[in-house]
Amino acid sequence: MENLTHLGNDTNYGFNYSPAVLETFDNKHPQNDYWVKFNAPEFTSLCPITGQPDFATIYISYIPGEKMVESKSLKLYLFSFRNHGDFHEDCINIIMKDLIKLMDPKYIEVWGKFLPRGGISIDPYSNYGKAGTKFEELAWYRMQNHDLNPETITNR
Amino acid sequence: MENLTHLGNDTNYGFNYSPAVLETFDNKHPQNDYWVKFNAPEFTSLCPITGQPDFATIYISYIPGEKMVESKSLKLYLFSFRNHGDFHEDCINIIMKDLIKLMDPKYIEVWGKFLPRGGISIDPYSNYGKAGTKFEELAWYRMQNHDLNPETITNR
Amino acid sequence: MENLTHLGNDTNYGFNYSPAVLETFDNKHPQNDYWVKFNAPEFTSLCPITGQPDFATIYISYIPGEKMVESKSLKLYLFSFRNHGDFHEDCINIIMKDLIKLMDPKYIEVWGKFLPRGGISIDPYSNYGKAGTKFEELAWYRMQNHDLNPETITNR
Amino acid sequence: MENLTHLGNDTNYGFNYSPAVLETFDNKHPQNDYWVKFNAPEFTSLCPITGQPDFATIYISYIPGEKMVESKSLKLYLFSFRNHGDFHEDCINIIMKDLIKLMDPKYIEVWGKFLPRGGISIDPYSNYGKAGTKFEELAWYRMQNHDLNPETITNR
Amino acid sequence: MENLTHLGNDTNYGFNYSPAVLETFDNKHPQNDYWVKFNAPEFTSLCPITGQPDFATIYISYIPGEKMVESKSLKLYLFSFRNHGDFHEDCINIIMKDLIKLMDPKYIEVWGKFLPRGGISIDPYSNYGKAGTKFEELAWYRMQNHDLNPETITNR
Amino acid sequence: MENLTHLGNDTNYGFNYSPAVLETFDNKHPQNDYWVKFNAPEFTSLCPITGQPDFATIYISYIPGEKMVESKSLKLYLFSFRNHGDFHEDCINIIMKDLIKLMDPKYIEVWGKFLPRGGISIDPYSNYGKAGTKFEELAWYRMQNHDLNPETITNR
Amino acid sequence: MENLTHLGNDTNYGFNYSPAVLETFDNKHPQNDYWVKFNAPEFTSLCPITGQPDFATIYISYIPGEKMVESKSLKLYLFSFRNHGDFHEDCINIIMKDLIKLMDPKYIEVWGKFLPRGGISIDPYSNYGKAGTKFEELAWYRMQNHDLNPETITNR
Amino acid sequence: MENLTHLGNDTNYGFNYSPAVLETFDNKHPQNDYWVKFNAPEFTSLCPITGQPDFATIYISYIPGEKMVESKSLKLYLFSFRNHGDFHEDCINIIMKDLIKLMDPKYIEVWGKFLPRGGISIDPYSNYGKAGTKFEELAWYRMQNHDLNPETITNR
Amino acid sequence: MENLTHLGNDTNYGFNYSPAVLETFDNKHPQNDYWVKFNAPEFTSLCPITGQPDFATIYISYIPGEKMVESKSLKLYLFSFRNHGDFHEDCINIIMKDLIKLMDPKYIEVWGKFLPRGGISIDPYSNYGKAGTKFEELAWYRMQNHDLNPETITNR
Amino acid sequence: MENLTHLGNDTNYGFNYSPAVLETFDNKHPQNDYWVKFNAPEFTSLCPITGQPDFATIYISYIPGEKMVESKSLKLYLFSFRNHGDFHEDCINIIMKDLIKLMDPKYIEVWGKFLPRGGISIDPYSNYGKAGTKFEELAWYRMQNHDLNPETITNR
Ligand SMILES: [Ca+2]
Ligand SMILES: [Ca+2]
Ligand SMILES: [Ca+2]
Ligand SMILES: [Ca+2]
Ligand SMILES: [Ca+2]
Ligand SMILES: [Ca+2]
Ligand SMILES: [Ca+2]
Ligand SMILES: [Ca+2]
Ligand SMILES: [Ca+2]
Ligand SMILES: [Ca+2]
Ligand SMILES: [Ca+2]
Ligand SMILES: [Ca+2]
Ligand SMILES: [Ca+2]
Ligand SMILES: [Ca+2]
Ligand SMILES: [Ca+2]
Ligand SMILES: [Ca+2]
Repeated sequence: MENLTHLGNDTNYGFNYSPAVLETFDNKHPQNDYWVKFNAPEFTSLCPITGQPDFATIYISYIPGEKMVESKSLKLYLFSFRNHGDFHEDCINIIMKDLIKLMDPKYIEVWGKFLPRGGISIDPYSNYGKAGTKFEELAWYRMQNHDLNPETITNR
Repeated sequence: MENLTHLGNDTNYGFNYSPAVLETFDNKHPQNDYWVKFNAPEFTSLCPITGQPDFATIYISYIPGEKMVESKSLKLYLFSFRNHGDFHEDCINIIMKDLIKLMDPKYIEVWGKFLPRGGISIDPYSNYGKAGTKFEELAWYRMQNHDLNPETITNR
Repeated sequence: MENLTHLGNDTNYGFNYSPAVLETFDNKHPQNDYWVKFNAPEFTSLCPITGQPDFATIYISYIPGEKMVESKSLKLYLFSFRNHGDFHEDCINIIMKDLIKLMDPKYIEVWGKFLPRGGISIDPYSNYGKAGTKFEELAWYRMQNHDLNPETITNR
Repeated sequence: MENLTHLGNDTNYGFNYSPAVLETFDNKHPQNDYWVKFNAPEFTSLCPITGQPDFATIYISYIPGEKMVESKSLKLYLFSFRNHGDFHEDCINIIMKDLIKLMDPKYIEVWGKFLPRGGISIDPYSNYGKAGTKFEELAWYRMQNHDLNPETITNR
Repeated sequence: MENLTHLGNDTNYGFNYSPAVLETFDNKHPQNDYWVKFNAPEFTSLCPITGQPDFATIYISYIPGEKMVESKSLKLYLFSFRNHGDFHEDCINIIMKDLIKLMDPKYIEVWGKFLPRGGISIDPYSNYGKAGTKFEELAWYRMQNHDLNPETITNR
Repeated sequence: MENLTHLGNDTNYGFNYSPAVLETFDNKHPQNDYWVKFNAPEFTSLCPITGQPDFATIYISYIPGEKMVESKSLKLYLFSFRNHGDFHEDCINIIMKDLIKLMDPKYIEVWGKFLPRGGISIDPYSNYGKAGTKFEELAWYRMQNHDLNPETITNR
Repeated sequence: MENLTHLGNDTNYGFNYSPAVLETFDNKHPQNDYWVKFNAPEFTSLCPITGQPDFATIYISYIPGEKMVESKSLKLYLFSFRNHGDFHEDCINIIMKDLIKLMDPKYIEVWGKFLPRGGISIDPYSNYGKAGTKFEELAWYRMQNHDLNPETITNR
Repeated sequence: MENLTHLGNDTNYGFNYSPAVLETFDNKHPQNDYWVKFNAPEFTSLCPITGQPDFATIYISYIPGEKMVESKSLKLYLFSFRNHGDFHEDCINIIMKDLIKLMDPKYIEVWGKFLPRGGISIDPYSNYGKAGTKFEELAWYRMQNHDLNPETITNR
Repeated sequence: MENLTHLGNDTNYGFNYSPAVLETFDNKHPQNDYWVKFNAPEFTSLCPITGQPDFATIYISYIPGEKMVESKSLKLYLFSFRNHGDFHEDCINIIMKDLIKLMDPKYIEVWGKFLPRGGISIDPYSNYGKAGTKFEELAWYRMQNHDLNPETITNR
Repeated sequence: MENLTHLGNDTNYGFNYSPAVLETFDNKHPQNDYWVKFNAPEFTSLCPITGQPDFATIYISYIPGEKMVESKSLKLYLFSFRNHGDFHEDCINIIMKDLIKLMDPKYIEVWGKFLPRGGISIDPYSNYGKAGTKFEELAWYRMQNHDLNPETITNR
């Protein structure tokens, strides 16, 4: 754990997109496939056209390979979208791609549930499985089965 | 983004069915399959027989191809049913067909949950996958699995 | 009941503000004070500045005097805001004043819960008790106690 | 208990308004004031104009005097509205008056929550306290405080 | 639509089982498979042994063939069980069979959720797919997957 | 605590009404008025007419005097109604009276919420304040304000 | 129906395990496969070690063969566990086996959701499909898919 | 409305505390006392010690005097806390004081419900009534009755 | 803020009752009465008889005087009950007394909602208002009105 | 049952990780595959870096082989993490491995839902099926289908 710089230490919070803050630690159970899920209801970014703040809850689920993302560094990474402008779909795809690059996971999925603008809310979902493994098929399987029981939305 | 006319600009609201207001922008992640979902609880149209207003929440989920529908134009498009008369099933099928024509998506589904008339509410659901691709099979797969865990309805 | 024109008959739906559609029938229990409450989740009007549709659930509770509002006429009256432009607060005050003028109730209150615009929703509430009666005090009492246990709002 | 004819015996169900089926038994705790509440979600009657069935949940709460209504007879009484035509407000006032006549309670209140017709639901509430006692004041007190925290209605 | 006799017209309500009130209209989208679902929380019938009223919410979902059931006629049909005696399972199977006979749908399912008798509630579910088509397999598929995430029941 | 016989020891469970199992311990904070509430969802007794089991959740709230009821002995006491026949109202009044006799509390209230029989559920509520103290007025105050925001009951 | 002894008649309630009270009637729709589900929130038994009462909601779903269990006899059968001592898992397996023996169903599943003991609640689930039929495969299929979306448990 | 600069126009979003963005319009119903409530679930500020983002839902309810706050300017004002550091209690008191200064309302209350830090969430509530009027008493009355039915918090 | 030792610094966690960890800061708004509420769902202590862990959510609401409790020190203080044995009622009274001693608040209330033991959960509530002020009356007022709308408890 | 040492006996609670407290009893239904699920909302451990307490609800579901874990011993085992430091993922994997070693089950899964730290909550899930049996495939099947309908998280 010696190379973790955030957990248990003082922190500087940066609000410009910075994937460099992400840190990993070693998966102690690499022989089993298991899920780790992060629920992050404090996500905010800016609309790239109007500059207006957007708000979302981000759900990230992955099956670790040899590396795992450290959760405090993930918090800082998500904070770094605070003054960053990007569309909802792009935020979700960028988060997924940054975490793939960081951890090389077997599988990962990222689901954003944004608050409405103009009476409509947008929920992008992206996933990925390592090419040439059964996790590639898993990605398609979960894409097929995504959100079959959608939540009721009333905007209240 | 230069050809988007609605987002960040003043708007004229029209309440007669007008698919022409729909606009697209380019999908920046065409190489991955991912979901985009719109939750739209402010849908209203007219009953074609009685002229009485109908109300619904419309859920639209799609896997984009090269084009994506811009969300403010989608809002205007849904507003354009306000003084338009059509049955519940027809509204849902028309919305789906207009979006297919607009975006040529890999896959799309549209689910309307209408408020009750005569003590009964009606929830139409239509979907589509591009012919000759795995998304055609996806359409049948999701048709098979549609609404297996239905919500409890009490009309209150 | 002979002077009720709407209930059980065919209907023309008008979408411009028309308090004239409101009709009354006689209260059969004028000697007791009792409550009648209408829950109306299908209210829609237009923003007077932008022309954009607004949506609300309207809750109307009153203690009848000698006249009571007929519910189908109330439906038509609420429909008549469909193409009418007014601010949220004004809609609620207008509805209350029209019903006072129509029925001369002992007491009435009108609460609108609107869907959000710009990430914020607005809930106006107005009430009235007949001057010089205990219902005038009731109006102040219920004003004092209004919404002490507010609902949780998440905009989803 | 010897004069109870319904509980534990076979039953004939009548569907025409019949307050005569109501039966009482003696309150064993007449020295304390206490509440008894009935929750009755199986109420149905007919619209007196259109003949169409109406549905409601009826909540009856009372503070007994010397007599108490037997619950199976109450069930039969509520069943007896099945083929009976009356407006929502009248059903609630009739139920209250029949129970006052039957039991001479210290206090009683009856709240009906009906399913919507024409997109609007109606919830009448009536109450009563024995004249010349503190329960008369209780009736006004609870009338004042009625439904200060109304439930959210969506018609779904 | 010229052969629809109920929608937009005055209505006689009959409370004896009458499948003859059911009416159809033409499916305008016969080339696509899509779902239509009816939520009907106002169902009541009689117990064939005791004559006691039973209450249920009925959920009907189908994939239309060339004909579709008109919703007001469906309301009248469901009303026609009001004074009809049949067991829960039989009501559900009869409703399904009558609708198959009426519409010749590709697929249909009917789920009844009845209120408890003797502390136990009963929820029958029946489905059907047109013989010799993929919808026959769909019927078995949905039979297999029925109610895998059952609702919590407390009888309150 | 030396005279507590149940807590931390083996137990014999008796299922016939036995107020003698109730035990007390000393209130360590007799100088302040404070509330202690027990939520007991495992109550069952028998109908005195039919012998059929009844089920309820019992809520007991009190302001202690010098003695407090020990919670394991309360559990055993409530278990002792298991084979005991009494009406809903009587169970609630008996529980309250036994606890008054045991503890001589400043104030106590007991609310039972029973499961439905014949489609109707019954919720008795009884309370008590020590005569000649402000707690006697508290009893009337809370009687007046009882259940002003009743829960929604659907029998499911 | 002539051999049903419980429904519509007076009843003796026995509280010792007695599968003999179970009765059947003929399935009128043996040619279709359909589900019948019982929701039974009034189950109570005794811990075989401590003698302490246990409480559960039991969910029973089956696809009938030629015989169906009569619901009032099922109620009596479940009541017969009241003074019977058995572990949670054993109750669920015994109920399933007794119903298989009684009805010879095509498929059956029994799910118990018990209240917590020592801060932990236990939910056993058992199922069965007739050997040598497609229902045997159904049993394994539903075993595989059991409880994939578990409810949130807080012990409150 | 001519002096409203935000509604219906393009907007510059500033994220440093700026009460100057607030704008008013005239109350058209100054003769009646009525409530206006804003639900604002998109509030975010910074911790003044650590610099870490905080998130809250802000509920603002007021009884207008002659001026009313325009809702889009309120949105911009709340956005202006985005890069501003202040404790939870201070944010709530500052918002209230700025709105008093802006509108001179008869009464106002501000309730913040913040997301947890260190496993504990903090909900400050402040209110105000115009000195020397009945609204001053209202402030104390609502302070007394604040949050008597608190929501259940689980941090999930 | 210079005398705050916990916030933004490294922390030693102690699990033995230690009111000394509590720290205060100055109330910046001493001229207004306002509420501060802490929701603390991570409370655990030990049963003084059996040594078994107990779990609760603690709700603390107060109206500050000149001093306010710093929230991180409150977290540490609540953690300090982790290996401490005390009855539910005593924990709540001790927490309240320690905070009174620390802050000398105008008013304070502490409500604990514990998880069940033996099928019964216990919810103690204690409050305090400064003697000789209107807050002393407030304490009695809120004691009178405590928990008039209790939550439904099912132990699941 | 003679070798069970905990159930029905006095208990010593240890708070240091001790898998040795786990005990088994014989599965009485080894011929059928069935599920046993434990819901354990009282789990607490320590963060291995900061020493701060963590809280979770643990859900354990398994299909027993010849041995089954006794539930009181499971409670003691989970209590033994109270003063033990480990990351969320490690706790879940350790619990699963200890139970595999103890019982040699056909299949087991363990899901932890932890309370948030730094605004993010973490939910690890691990599963296992006996190598060389159909339960090995079951493990992959349930891994694929894990959490397809995730709960909404708001951190309140
Ligand atoms: Ca679902
Ligand atoms: Ca909602
Ligand atoms: Ca509902
Ligand atoms: Ca509330
Ligand atoms: Ca919400
Ligand atoms: Ca309420
Ligand atoms: Ca609703
Ligand atoms: Ca329920
Ligand atoms: Ca309530
Ligand atoms: Ca319910
Ligand atoms: Ca589910
Ligand atoms: Ca719960
Ligand atoms: Ca409450
Ligand atoms: Ca929660
Ligand atoms: Ca519960
Ligand atoms: Ca939540």
